[in-house]
Amino acid sequence: MTVAQGTTNHQVRLAARPTGLPKPSDWQFTEEALAEPGAGEFLVKTLMLSLDPAMRGWMNEGKSYIAPVGLGEVMRAGGIGKVIASQHPDFPVGTIVNGGLGVQEYLLVGRDNFKTVGPQRVDLNLAPAQKWLNPLGMPGMTAYFGLLDVGLPKPGETVVVSGAAGAVGQTVGQIAKIKGCRVVGIAGGAAKCEFVVRELGFDACIDYKHQPLKDGLKEHCPKGVDIYFDNVGGEILDTVLTRITRGARIIICGAISQYNNTTAIKGPSNYLSLLVNRARMEGIVVFDNAARFPEAIGAIAAWMKEGRFVSREDIVDGLAEFPDALLKLFNGENFGKLILRVAEG
Amino acid sequence: MTVAQGTTNHQVRLAARPTGLPKPSDWQFTEEALAEPGAGEFLVKTLMLSLDPAMRGWMNEGKSYIAPVGLGEVMRAGGIGKVIASQHPDFPVGTIVNGGLGVQEYLLVGRDNFKTVGPQRVDLNLAPAQKWLNPLGMPGMTAYFGLLDVGLPKPGETVVVSGAAGAVGQTVGQIAKIKGCRVVGIAGGAAKCEFVVRELGFDACIDYKHQPLKDGLKEHCPKGVDIYFDNVGGEILDTVLTRITRGARIIICGAISQYNNTTAIKGPSNYLSLLVNRARMEGIVVFDNAARFPEAIGAIAAWMKEGRFVSREDIVDGLAEFPDALLKLFNGENFGKLILRVAEG
Repeated sequence: MTVAQGTTNHQVRLAARPTGLPKPSDWQFTEEALAEPGAGEFLVKTLMLSLDPAMRGWMNEGKSYIAPVGLGEVMRAGGIGKVIASQHPDFPVGTIVNGGLGVQEYLLVGRDNFKTVGPQRVDLNLAPAQKWLNPLGMPGMTAYFGLLDVGLPKPGETVVVSGAAGAVGQTVGQIAKIKGCRVVGIAGGAAKCEFVVRELGFDACIDYKHQPLKDGLKEHCPKGVDIYFDNVGGEILDTVLTRITRGARIIICGAISQYNNTTAIKGPSNYLSLLVNRARMEGIVVFDNAARFPEAIGAIAAWMKEGRFVSREDIVDGLAEFPDALLKLFNGENFGKLILRVAEG
Repeated sequence: MTVAQGTTNHQVRLAARPTGLPKPSDWQFTEEALAEPGAGEFLVKTLMLSLDPAMRGWMNEGKSYIAPVGLGEVMRAGGIGKVIASQHPDFPVGTIVNGGLGVQEYLLVGRDNFKTVGPQRVDLNLAPAQKWLNPLGMPGMTAYFGLLDVGLPKPGETVVVSGAAGAVGQTVGQIAKIKGCRVVGIAGGAAKCEFVVRELGFDACIDYKHQPLKDGLKEHCPKGVDIYFDNVGGEILDTVLTRITRGARIIICGAISQYNNTTAIKGPSNYLSLLVNRARMEGIVVFDNAARFPEAIGAIAAWMKEGRFVSREDIVDGLAEFPDALLKLFNGENFGKLILRVAEG
């Protein structure tokens, strides 16, 4: 009797390339019988998957920092899983791994896909699984290296971050506070703004649905914006550009407001503010810093242990909920890092 | 008998803030009697004035890197002049100076305006007057510090510069060649492109009026664009963004295509290419490097002497020609650094 025998792997595949927001018909639910691990292979059971704005980009054709998901392929996703059968000495049964598991219940990892999956052992004694998809995972790594290496924050500087209640934003702001900056978030809705100020300890949070952003920036960033960490693009980026200081740094991390555009992306009309202010706008891709992830994980885990750093996840249950859950990222409904729980650990 | 007595100073003043391209009615021609220099003052006769795209920005209201020219004020302009009467020990009669003379025939420099005018003695033995408004003046300084300090060119990299036959562009490209780069210019028209390749020694020049820029970039920058020095903005910037390499640097020096817009400036729709390519876009203002101008002047003058560097000026004669001459900058008519000769040296 083996683990895989008779077990079905449910999967979500990309059926069509979406125009605008992904529709139900852009997905296909499939099932496959599981194979038993051969020599050098191990079988991972998915526990939790990370749902990220970047997923929308992976669904498009065209050159980007990573190849698009092919039509008919299991949708790409990072996640946490547990090794349930193994013929690989480094990944014995019971090992918890973080890697590119895909939107499915099981993944057989072997020579063919080891590099793509990139399984990393995670230590649940250091932090629970969901934290390894948030501050200790890609969002945390993105925040850490983007803010520190590109933003170059100095104590007393004013840091503004959009998507402040989101996965990357919450970590950016808290690290900026730890580095001695004044930190102002931008988020949509009173509940998110209250969380950002009360729980995360930002100095202020502008609810752009309630107050014109320009007024909020004047009020909360009286000396201007030295560092802007941009997760959203569009009008918000354009407005912040009018309030930057001389020598400001703008980190381009994402543009969630533009990912589902059916027309051309809106470029920042106020980009000449970069000239007037001798400022810089720079793009980042988290994978570039992979060799230094242990440094960032160590720092953030230490801050968590010291009680100087908190994080929030928004957990949705069930593989079947994937299509709807993903949309929460784009309608502003999710609150904290969005995670799909596929199975109980 | 003194120099100033009975002499009339003809001036061009800003009469109205233009909408779009400056019209004749936006200017006012005035004349004033000259005053004789008092203690610590000296009188400068304008020889040549620099006509620059930045002038269009100075005519607008609103915050920028420099205060706008006030309505009714003499139009701001940098230029070369000769001291014709003096009670200042450092600027005796016959001294040639470079400074903010304004669009007028004479300027009395004294305690009140010394700092604004910023007169610098120039050595006509090193290079003739027009060179002090081109490679040894602001365009040259802009090119030198923008390319070297922000662009950080490495031998073998591909540098693209727009406005390649213009004042800044010609110097950017030649310095990039001296630094061992492959250099591709963008200019409008066959004559300019021929000049850029044959006289200035660029590796290629794309005539964007003759060939789609995207095709030209594919042909002449097969490995992509490592450094883009942008003088024009608009569609050209947006197209170059699609061809940048990983880690590319974009220097935002100006946006001549947008200065006369009556609608909002066109932001670069393809700015997310900065993210995909981990690239940087940074604005520059030449005055920031004033303390290091002697270094740049020394370097460029040496290259000129060695025959490794040439430059071209487009000289228009007569103060009365100022309004029409300025328009040559915006309709692509000028060829080389545009200069207004007000008087013979």
